[in-house]
Parts: sequence; structure tokens; C-alpha cells
Amino acid sequence: MGELIGKAVEGELYYADRKEFDRIRSLNAEPAVRTALFADMARLNALYMIARAGSGHIGSSFSSMDVVSWLHLNEMRTNEDGSARDLYFSSKGHDAPGLYAVMIALGKLPAEYVHKLRQADGLPGHPDVRTPNMVTNTGALGMGISKAKGMAFAHRRRGLDVHLYVMTGDGELQEGQIWESLVSAANDKLREITVVVDHNKLQSDFLLSQTSDLGDLPAKFAAFGWHVERVDGHDLGQLAAALERCRKADGPQVIICDTIKGKGVSFMEHTAMESDAAQYTFHSGAPKADQYTKAAQELIDSINRQLDKAGAASLELEKVQNKPAPQPGETRRLLPAYSDALIAAAERHDNLVALDADLLLDTGLIPFRQRFPERTVECGIAEMDMVSQAGGMALKGMIPVCNSFACFLSTRPNEQIYNNATEHTKVIYVGWLAGMVPGGPGHSHQSVRDIAAVGAMPGVTILEPSCPEEVAPLLDWAIEESRGSSYFRMVSVPWQVPFALPAGYKPSVGHGVRVGGHDGEAVIVTYGMVMLAQACAAADLLKQRGIGLEVVNLPWLNRVDGAWLAKTLAGKSALFTLDNHYLDGGQGERVMTAAFEQGLGGLKARRFGLEKVPVSGSNADVLKHAGLDAESLAAGIAATLGH
Amino acid sequence: MGELIGKAVEGELYYADRKEFDRIRSLNAEPAVRTALFADMARLNALYMIARAGSGHIGSSFSSMDVVSWLHLNEMRTNEDGSARDLYFSSKGHDAPGLYAVMIALGKLPAEYVHKLRQADGLPGHPDVRTPNMVTNTGALGMGISKAKGMAFAHRRRGLDVHLYVMTGDGELQEGQIWESLVSAANDKLREITVVVDHNKLQSDFLLSQTSDLGDLPAKFAAFGWHVERVDGHDLGQLAAALERCRKADGPQVIICDTIKGKGVSFMEHTAMESDAAQYTFHSGAPKADQYTKAAQELIDSINRQLDKAGAASLELEKVQNKPAPQPGETRRLLPAYSDALIAAAERHDNLVALDADLLLDTGLIPFRQRFPERTVECGIAEMDMVSQAGGMALKGMIPVCNSFACFLSTRPNEQIYNNATEHTKVIYVGWLAGMVPGGPGHSHQSVRDIAAVGAMPGVTILEPSCPEEVAPLLDWAIEESRGSSYFRMVSVPWQVPFALPAGYKPSVGHGVRVGGHDGEAVIVTYGMVMLAQACAAADLLKQRGIGLEVVNLPWLNRVDGAWLAKTLAGKSALFTLDNHYLDGGQGERVMTAAFEQGLGGLKARRFGLEKVPVSGSNADVLKHAGLDAESLAAGIAATLGH
Repeated sequence: MGELIGKAVEGELYYADRKEFDRIRSLNAEPAVRTALFADMARLNALYMIARAGSGHIGSSFSSMDVVSWLHLNEMRTNEDGSARDLYFSSKGHDAPGLYAVMIALGKLPAEYVHKLRQADGLPGHPDVRTPNMVTNTGALGMGISKAKGMAFAHRRRGLDVHLYVMTGDGELQEGQIWESLVSAANDKLREITVVVDHNKLQSDFLLSQTSDLGDLPAKFAAFGWHVERVDGHDLGQLAAALERCRKADGPQVIICDTIKGKGVSFMEHTAMESDAAQYTFHSGAPKADQYTKAAQELIDSINRQLDKAGAASLELEKVQNKPAPQPGETRRLLPAYSDALIAAAERHDNLVALDADLLLDTGLIPFRQRFPERTVECGIAEMDMVSQAGGMALKGMIPVCNSFACFLSTRPNEQIYNNATEHTKVIYVGWLAGMVPGGPGHSHQSVRDIAAVGAMPGVTILEPSCPEEVAPLLDWAIEESRGSSYFRMVSVPWQVPFALPAGYKPSVGHGVRVGGHDGEAVIVTYGMVMLAQACAAADLLKQRGIGLEVVNLPWLNRVDGAWLAKTLAGKSALFTLDNHYLDGGQGERVMTAAFEQGLGGLKARRFGLEKVPVSGSNADVLKHAGLDAESLAAGIAATLGH
Repeated sequence: MGELIGKAVEGELYYADRKEFDRIRSLNAEPAVRTALFADMARLNALYMIARAGSGHIGSSFSSMDVVSWLHLNEMRTNEDGSARDLYFSSKGHDAPGLYAVMIALGKLPAEYVHKLRQADGLPGHPDVRTPNMVTNTGALGMGISKAKGMAFAHRRRGLDVHLYVMTGDGELQEGQIWESLVSAANDKLREITVVVDHNKLQSDFLLSQTSDLGDLPAKFAAFGWHVERVDGHDLGQLAAALERCRKADGPQVIICDTIKGKGVSFMEHTAMESDAAQYTFHSGAPKADQYTKAAQELIDSINRQLDKAGAASLELEKVQNKPAPQPGETRRLLPAYSDALIAAAERHDNLVALDADLLLDTGLIPFRQRFPERTVECGIAEMDMVSQAGGMALKGMIPVCNSFACFLSTRPNEQIYNNATEHTKVIYVGWLAGMVPGGPGHSHQSVRDIAAVGAMPGVTILEPSCPEEVAPLLDWAIEESRGSSYFRMVSVPWQVPFALPAGYKPSVGHGVRVGGHDGEAVIVTYGMVMLAQACAAADLLKQRGIGLEVVNLPWLNRVDGAWLAKTLAGKSALFTLDNHYLDGGQGERVMTAAFEQGLGGLKARRFGLEKVPVSGSNADVLKHAGLDAESLAAGIAATLGH
């Protein structure tokens, strides 16, 4: 799950090109020998891709690499014309860099994509069907087996003999949908489905056993009627034998592969963690420059030892001087402000409880857990369960605060949030990674429809702080003043804050506040760090063209005070809104509706926001593709104003 | 799940009042004897309540009644002041009539509530915490164990010793959240939670084994680390012994109770079904008058035999002459039109597949399944799995049509619908029971936020047919013209249709059509059978006051063509919208936004729609409470116009 924000590695990076992979595949050696070599070379390339992109999941790309390589080199059938027949995909999708490296090595993805991980014109952070040979969109957890069942149904209807290999994580098995999906696969005897569990024992932050222990996993699958195998996921002989036995099963099969997270680089292997280490650090993000160099060298040495043993020449490497794009100037983050505000609130309220779904680090809860271990409830990757637990706590006098990524929190437990809302209790939901940036992870992680999804929950107020200073006032309002529940949209990326709240600012429901821009005829209403920064920059550009655009922060995403709006627009000739969200269901609709209901006719009006699924890429590219960067905004506003 | 629409029974109905229950509880007899008597009397009262209300779930109220009675009479502890200490609730909530009957008999609910099932001033169709002694809101499936865990956490924090008994259905075990919730209960050794499975083997329509077989249920729970017992759920001695063993367990326990759906009335017992019977008919709805009389008599006879055997006097019964409120005049239904349109589409498209989540009857799929058994996929109560399966099918060339109740379909698989949408395939979602009526089932089943929840899915068009004639044209548009996916909101209740589509009507995206009302200065834009009928009736009332209100049907719930709207409003002085949905995120916001963006200022404007959680009650009461009946609408419109 985690989406740690990393930094691209600067300096010399290495990768192997396709002809080296071709050489290895044609070596006169046992399949297991060739495959192990291939896998280590793919590890080297995945490491390159992640180091270059500045983020990606090393740990699971490496733990699953031997299995993914074996399946693609030795197991999956091709049609007579050479096209793929059997299908493989990863349900979790986090291990995409590993899969991409394998697919590039096999010529199933363009060679230049090795340089284009998490770029708008290249490979998205999680798989997408618009990329060649990607089978289904993943990144949202737990859907893979269901998807495979649907495909199996279609294949059977069409008389096609296609075997489906689905990789899942082990933390992913905490998702309820996995267990939903097992039932009919067994009842319908879908023997063309083989699930491989990458059982690397680690979740985003901590050991599975510390997060939400899975217990007797083979017994669970067996009780659900599946054929179960368990092997060392790095022992290709064991794996081949298990796959052979699976072929004889008369129903769906699961192979639980015991693997090592970060396998292949000694200091990235989770088994190398000090027993008192706070957490595993190579789940997501990018290695530091020295870590990269050390890891790459270790892989290269290992590959060359294997080549030498097989009587083959050493690896020929491609070298790239990587010069990452300059980082934006001074940036700020909401996360520390939230950690502090939550702890302060918990000091005042001994019934405040923080719940987490395997994202303690990304949601700023590590300090909270240190301070209040007995009031931290780790639910594992089980958002429905987390939200309903919170509902139960709230009924019994607690103030539960549910934390996750906004894309998951607003959607997976959507009915559970509503169920809580109908009980008229108070639950606080805090969704991180809100909005379209970071653009690296792709649409499964870009939360750009949560205002809509949570909007119509009665009594639930949606808020987004504009800067670190606004976090505590809004959180305190939710805890101490609001009678109902609240949902917070939180930007995770560090971002510029070229504006400031007025001195003595105090939040007031449905009221916005001017924070920047230049006096003039037009007003733009928006919210959050990312869009306020764009709006301010656009206002500066417009000023050069003689247009005054006033920038208003309205942190209330589903509450607009009509009288305040009328006052704000008095004497103005144009109203713009800017959503870090799809236009449909965003704040803009609510603002425009309020303006119309106030009888404020005759103004020029335009909503800016997402109209299509956002791309995966650099933050700048994502904003630009959506027409929401400062330049596009300024041009759009000027056009609307007739300038 | 099912919510068959029944009819209240007219004529003489019977129930037992509290003093008769008190008499039975003080009988000098074994607890098992007293409890069996109590349970049969509660069955008689639940039958009365359902017959009087015209709907409710007989089957599961009866199958669970012995267990519920035993727990309340013999197992659950009270505090020294007589207040409840241990807590019981049903996770499925369908069996509410049974629980209500028990609670009324024990004096834990007001005596007059026996006459007020599914009434706005009485008992909601599914439990709600605003009713005395109801522990949590249920009706949406699978949340109960999670809720109990949250309560257990709060109790432990507060140093309270409270045991939690949670009833689940067996069909309910198909929901993924159940399996999510089992994990931490076992890891945290929550021995204060006892789950009782009402294993009556039947789902809404068919046998569990025909729907989505559960396989080896005890093995499943055991694999998840729970202490497992299995008993005959009508054998109180077995039950008592199992509960005794549970008390010694050091973790959470589950008691799988083999029960008979409809237990207590011979012809309602599922075991009495002919082996070739199409389906079980006493899941939801109400008995017919002769069925009621026969069932009541059978229960009374059985009770009197038991009383006689215990040396006690016969039952004293209260009699009520029930005269149901008059039904509305001629009504029409969308369901048959949908069944026909779907079959016709499937005749044209051999890749069209219908998927169902245990609601074949309520979603009109019985004829489809008869015609195309090989293209009907029954998923059980597993909406996430259904939607992701549909996604897999669509990727492989099928046109999947997912059917369920709108309240579940738009929310439980919300992230799965989005995942499919990001693949840019075509999936049709058809959500029944849309809107606030029927009001009987209560808010868990009233789908009044699905426009918001599904609205911001890129490429997904939301539609609601206004009358049977509009079903096929809209469905055909979705299947044959739309490039993206569609979500249909379908009214389930029979309703008046005092309007007609113009001759030669052809749907056009974002365009509405005038269907009724009277020429004049004001326009109301709305959709669907229920609200169009209200709007037309309001227009008639307004005409008497000299106000002309034109009624426009806009079946596109998240698409508004601005030019069409401007044309429609030309020369008008007021725009009203009417949502069968919360105001927040409804069609009204989209219409008002489009009007403002068209520069149509200066009109009087008001949105009508839900502002609070709707009540559970008669359809008329539900509309009236929300201020959305014709009279309230007319008054509101007149006031806005200054009349």
C-alpha cells in the first residue's frame, strides 16, 4: 500500500538491455539456472527504473521476481503465432516495476520504457490496460481473483483455453474481497486459475505478524475449497514441481510462496532487518544514492558469478548519467502538522482512538502510536473492518479517527461510512494522498472522486486544510465543535505555499477566506495546498496581462455559505472554481449552485477540474495533462474573460 | 436481502400482549420449555407485525427465534439496576420483526410498537439506534462483527465487562467483510464476542447451495482461529451446552446453528418446499390473508398444546381488525419492462451476460435466467466480487450487466466500479430499490446517495427511466450507443404514472423532455416515476393557485446539456429541481450549475430533495417527512415564487 515519496537518484545508473537477456535465455544451462540469472538481471533493471523514477516498490518487485520470471520463461503458453496465450497479472500491482522489467526483457514492452517508469509517456506506477500486454488495472487491492474469474467465464464462453496466473500479496489477503472471490472459483471448479501468494511476511511498514497476522494460511485456502501448495518462492525446482501438481488439480489452485522482501540484495532483504528495527525501509520510495550503488554492485557481482559458473561472459551493462529534474523550491508538508494536532487532541480527549489500515507511516501515525500505543488500533489492509470498528467505538463513547489513503478510505468502506453516518455518531476520517498528485502511483492511488463519494453522507463535513497552519484548527473544529462526522482530504506531497492565512484566522463553516491573488474583477474559489498554489501562480500570470484574480481558500468541500459567497462576489464579474477532483461531484458544482441560488446571475463562470482519468507521471506532467497547471489555468481564465 | 413488496393483510389479526409473556416466563417449568413457548408466542407476534405492515422477513425471524429467545431469557446478564449488560444484535438485521417481538415481550420496547412495524412513528424495517435498546444500525450486510469488535475495544478501555452476541445470516457469510472482521478478533482473543450463525440454508430466493455454496463452514471459521460449535438451532439444550463451552474458550466463538427457515409454521418451513419448487416464498413480503390465518392458527394450536402440557391455561389473545390504508389507484412497475428489455438486448447480443448478487427476483432476472441460463452468473451476496468479475468479462469482450439493490450496488463495490471505469470498458450497472420509497425497509435499503457515489466515475452515465416505456430506449442506448459504462437507478415500487412521454420520444444525452404540468413561468426538472408523479400532482395544486409549473423529465442524472437547459428556461422566471436523493450530490446541483454557467441569472431557484436520513415508514409518510410530497412541494414552490 505505502507510497513513500522518494527522490530520484542522481549520478551513474546501470541497466541491462534486451540482447543481454536474450543471451541468458539461450544459455546452455538448466532452466532454473537461466531463470535465476534472468531474475537477477530483471532485479537490476527494476532497481534502475525505481532509482530513476524516484519512487516504486523495490521490496515486492524483488520478492516476487523469481516466480514472475519462472512463469514467463517456462510456464506460460504462447499461441502458434507467438502471441501470449496464458495470462499473468498481479492483483496488488505494487510489484509493477518488477513485472515491467520482465516484460521489457522479453520484448513485450518497448525497450525505451526502461527509462520511463512513472512517466506520462511511459509506464504508470501501477499497471494499466492501456500499456501493451497489461491484463487488467490493479493497484487497488483484492480485486485480482474476481477479475480472473470474469475472464475465465468469457474464455469459456468463447471456447478459449487460457490459463490465468494471479499474483497476490500476503497483506492483500487481509482484504475481504479476496475471500469473497474464492468461493465461486471453487464451486465452479475454475482449474484454469492459479493464484500465487508472494508471502514475504511484510506489509507497508511492519511485519504482517505485527499488523494483522494471517494465521494458518494453507488451512484457510483449503477450507475455501482450493488446492493448496506451499513452496520456497526462491527455489525454482520446488516451484516447478508445485505448478506440475497444480496442473492435475480439478479446481483452482493457490501456491503460497515463502519469499524474502527485497530478495537479491543483502541489505534490502527483510530478513536482514535488525530485530529491533522500527520498520522495513524498502517497501516503497527510492533508494538513496549510496544504497543504489551498493545494491546495483551486489546484483552485478551476483549475476557475474552465476554467468561465470555457467561458463558465459560477464554482463554487459548500459550506463546512464541520471540528472533528475530540479525539485521545486521551498516546500512544506501537512503530515507533521497532523501528527502534532492529533496528539494534542488526544491529550485533551482520552477517548480519542486512532485506527490505521497498514499505513502508519504514510498517515503520520508513528508518533501517535509511540505516545498512545493503547489507543492505536492497527486493522491491517481491511478498510471496511476498520470503519465499522470505528462505528462500534463511536457508539460506545470513543472518538475514533480512521486513517488511510483517500482513494481507499472513501470508496472501499463507502457503505460502512454511511452506516456510521446513519447512527449520528462522530467519526473522523482522514484520507491521505488526496488529489491528483503525487502522479507517480497512478489512478488507483489518485483520490479525485472522494468529495463525490463521501459528499452525500448526511452530517459528514468534508474538509481540506490549505497549509500546515490550517490543520489543527480544522481538526479541532471536527473534534470539538462539529456535531457530526468529518472527512479530511490531506495532500501528502511536499508543496509550495505561496500564500498565507490571515492573522487570527478561525475556520467558520462554509466560509472561505482570501489568501492571495490580486485585486480585480474575478474570483477563483479553491482549496488545498496544490490548487491554491496553482491559483496563486495563475493570478500572477494574469496580473501581467492586466487581469486581477482574487484567490479564495474554501476548506469546506461540501458546505458553501450562500451569504458569504454573495458578499465575496459583490461587484465581481466572474467566478471560477478549481477542483483537485473530477468536475462531476466536486466543490465547483456546490459553489456554482450556491451562486445561482443566491440569484447572482450574469457572471462569467467556469469550473476547472479533472474531466478524464488523470495520467500517471511527474507532478508537473499530471497537472499539465489535466489543464490544471498555472499556465493552462491562466489561459483558460483569460479566454473566459474575453481577454 | 430481498425486499419483496407485499400487501397488508385485511381482517382479524392476533397477537399476545406482554402479560401473557410474563405469565409464560414465570411458569414452573424447565427453561427450555418456557423458552420454546416464549419463542412461539414471539413468532405469533412477529407474524402479526409483518401481516399488519405488509412487509418484513418472516423466514429469518422464525428461523432465529429460538436462539434469540434463549439468549434474552437465559443467557444475557443484566446490571444490578436491571438494565441490560450484555448486548445482542443481528448483523443482517432482516430478522428485526422477530427481535422486536422479543423486545416488546420483555418490556424493552413500548407495547404499542407491536402495531407499528415499518411506521414512521414506530419501528423501522431494519434496526436503528434511535429505537430504544437497539445496539447498532444494521440491514447492510456483513458489518456486525466489525461493529462488535469496536464496541469490545471501547468496553475494555472503559473497564466494562460486557458480552456481545452477534447474529449473522448464512448467506451473509458470502460478504467479504465477514472474513476481514474475523482476523483481528482471533488475534486479539476477543472472548467476549459470540457469533451465532442462523444457518437456515436459504438466501433471498433460493437455497444457499444453489446460490453460492459455503462449503465446509466449520473448517472456515476454525481456520480463521475461532472456537467453533455447531448445533441444531431449535434444540435449546444443545444450544445451552454450546454456549457453556463457549464461555471457556479463550478467544471469539461462533455457534453455527442449523435452523429451518420459517420454523414454527409447517407450510412456511423451507424443508416443506417441494423439491422442484421454484423458490422459497416467505423470505420477505407479507403472507396472503389465508396464509396468515392458517399460520396464526397453527402457532396458536402449538402454543396451547405446550401450555396444556405444562399444566397452564390456554393463551389469551388480543384481536385486531386490520383495515389497511387504501392503495393508490392504478400503478405501474418498471420491473417487467426491464425483464423484457434485457432479454431483447440479449437476443441481439450474444455477449451480454447478467450478473446477480442474490436478488434474481427483485431485479427482474428470473425470466432472463430461464431464457439464458448459461449467461446468468449468480454471485451470491458478494457485490465486490460481482463487479470485479464483470470487469474481467468486459475486458474479454462480454457486455456484463450487474444487478442488485442500488443501495448496495453503488456503495459496497464503489472502488471496484471505479477500477472498471479506469479500464474504459463497458459495464452496465442496474440498481433497484432506488430512491426513498419503499419506505418500509429503512435507510439501509433506501438508495438516496447513489448519484453522488457513482457520479464522479469517468465515463459512467447515470440514468433513471421515468416510466415503463422509457426502460428499453435507455437500456438500448447504454448497450448500443454509449461508449462508456452506465448506471441505472430503478424504482421498485409500483407507482402512479400521471404523465406520458411525447410520441416518438428518443433519448438524447443531457436533454430532458416536458412530460406534464401546466404552462407557466416556472419549470421543475426531475426524474423517475416517484418524483415525476409528485411534481405533476404539485403542478395541479399550483394551478389552482394560478401558478403554472411545467414538469420536465431529465433521465440523465449526471449529464446536463447547457444549451438545452437555456432553451427550456427561456422566458421563465423560476427553476426548481427535485431529487429522489440527498440534495448534496444530486441532479439538482448539476442542473443549477449548468444554469449558472449558461449565464442564466436572476431566476428564482430552489432545489428540493432529502436533507436528512429518510425515515422508515409508509411511502406517503416518508415523502411527507422529507417535505417531498405534492402538498409540501406546492407550498415550497409557491413560497419561493412569493405567492
